[in-house]
Amino acid sequence: MTSDSQPSPQALASSPVITWRQGPVGIVGLGLIGGSLGLDLQRQGVEVRALVHREATAERARQRCLASEVSTTPSVLAGCSLVVLALPLDRLLKPPQELVAALPPQAVITDVGSVKAPVLELWQGLHPRFVASHPMAGTAEAGVEAGVGGLFAGRPWVATPDPQTDPACLAAVRALAESVGAHWLSCGAAEHDQAVALISHLPVLVGAALLQTADRASAAGTEGLAGLVRALASSGFAAASRVGGGNPELGTLMARCNREALLVALAAYRQQLGALEQQVRQEDWQGLRQELDRTQDLRPQFL
Amino acid sequence: MTSDSQPSPQALASSPVITWRQGPVGIVGLGLIGGSLGLDLQRQGVEVRALVHREATAERARQRCLASEVSTTPSVLAGCSLVVLALPLDRLLKPPQELVAALPPQAVITDVGSVKAPVLELWQGLHPRFVASHPMAGTAEAGVEAGVGGLFAGRPWVATPDPQTDPACLAAVRALAESVGAHWLSCGAAEHDQAVALISHLPVLVGAALLQTADRASAAGTEGLAGLVRALASSGFAAASRVGGGNPELGTLMARCNREALLVALAAYRQQLGALEQQVRQEDWQGLRQELDRTQDLRPQFL
Repeated sequence: MTSDSQPSPQALASSPVITWRQGPVGIVGLGLIGGSLGLDLQRQGVEVRALVHREATAERARQRCLASEVSTTPSVLAGCSLVVLALPLDRLLKPPQELVAALPPQAVITDVGSVKAPVLELWQGLHPRFVASHPMAGTAEAGVEAGVGGLFAGRPWVATPDPQTDPACLAAVRALAESVGAHWLSCGAAEHDQAVALISHLPVLVGAALLQTADRASAAGTEGLAGLVRALASSGFAAASRVGGGNPELGTLMARCNREALLVALAAYRQQLGALEQQVRQEDWQGLRQELDRTQDLRPQFL
Repeated sequence: MTSDSQPSPQALASSPVITWRQGPVGIVGLGLIGGSLGLDLQRQGVEVRALVHREATAERARQRCLASEVSTTPSVLAGCSLVVLALPLDRLLKPPQELVAALPPQAVITDVGSVKAPVLELWQGLHPRFVASHPMAGTAEAGVEAGVGGLFAGRPWVATPDPQTDPACLAAVRALAESVGAHWLSCGAAEHDQAVALISHLPVLVGAALLQTADRASAAGTEGLAGLVRALASSGFAAASRVGGGNPELGTLMARCNREALLVALAAYRQQLGALEQQVRQEDWQGLRQELDRTQDLRPQFL
């Protein structure tokens, strides 16, 4: 991981410097990420041209002023110097042919997908100026109503370049990300996918299993137990189960697109939880206390 | 579970009605629960006599006005009509002989332990007017500095009476709990312990294993992965790991005192998480989506 890597002078000399402010910015999809980006960019005086799927979405996006121009016709992207593909992972990985054809050959293209290896592999073959990136900003909301100003401020925006990635295009995406206040990071695609499996996709299944257990184990107990667990669940349970009770479509998509890294994370998790269970079974209270001392020390590192 | 059960008229007739306001209230231990209760009761004009272990604690408790009188001598409890044992579980389960001897025979005695079956079993033999109870209120703080006014308002206060419990004593503890704004619940001790295993003790180990996994799996990866997971961990990971990074002493004590119910909960959890893992392994995306739809529906029931 590098957080402030600049392209080398040689790399910069080998390709022309692209200023993304040279032309309008295109955004494909005006959900939480696309809509929020549209609001932030327009506040900087940037012209934003957006492509959406449905006319009803376009109409609402115009009412919300999420972009300067909103259309359901791919030709709206003509003339854009940079295009952000703010699509859900499944559509990003199966892009309509007319979208690919409408991307200007000279434009820098980036995406916002939360899994990077398959996106990078596909899109490098579809466009020579593609840069894989992932702004790590989110709320529980989704859709055309979700976009808000300032979403990216202080949040990580991770790029996953590889040797094929044009350094000038990478620099252009970095400038875009930093213009909306994001904190730029760069790492390999596989490394990114392992990291998000551990801190983003694993917690979804861990929290989902917690809700299922509280529900099913209590339903199998005495008559009053199911009501009792609901009455006694505190803010600690609410926190532990938050992402496990989150957007099911997103959770499933992430598992599908990051399956291998998630399975590795799940195996590691199973081993850790098994070791704690073993300590409880063997009444190794000193050992359990040492592990909980350690996790108390660890947690601030992840905040 | 009953949330508004009144002792039957017959039960009330069989034992004298005890008004806990007849005399001072004793509190043994002035940590988060004891200190907060002392503040709330004094605000009602109740005289509070507190017994603490160390003179330094007594001195600080006097400065903070956590009780009307604070002493390290058990005889401070003489004349109290109701005594609340606000001790950590380990000390509650191995009470000093001089404490037991100092409890007035006519006083109603209750505790605040987060596990009830072993407490009820022990203390019913130690005092005829014992009522096992558990105010479910907490913050991350502990010790003599932790007590705050209003801690119990709107929070559950669970009693776990059994046929030996004197209905008049139960009514006295209920009146005390409701006087500080708590929501009174009553259930069996075993049922209580199963419920807290599911919604309070299991989440500690589930969250601890999540922190361990993010730490150890990333340390075993590429050079930059350990830093990357820390940089990318979002509010979702912070929430999921909150109780897993909480007070290690409390976590160990709860596991020790509620070991059997916790092992049952862990086995049920292992099965649920294993089923989700199996869906990911078998690429059963429709099945996974159904489970995540279900956990999304479930979560509001626990808030």
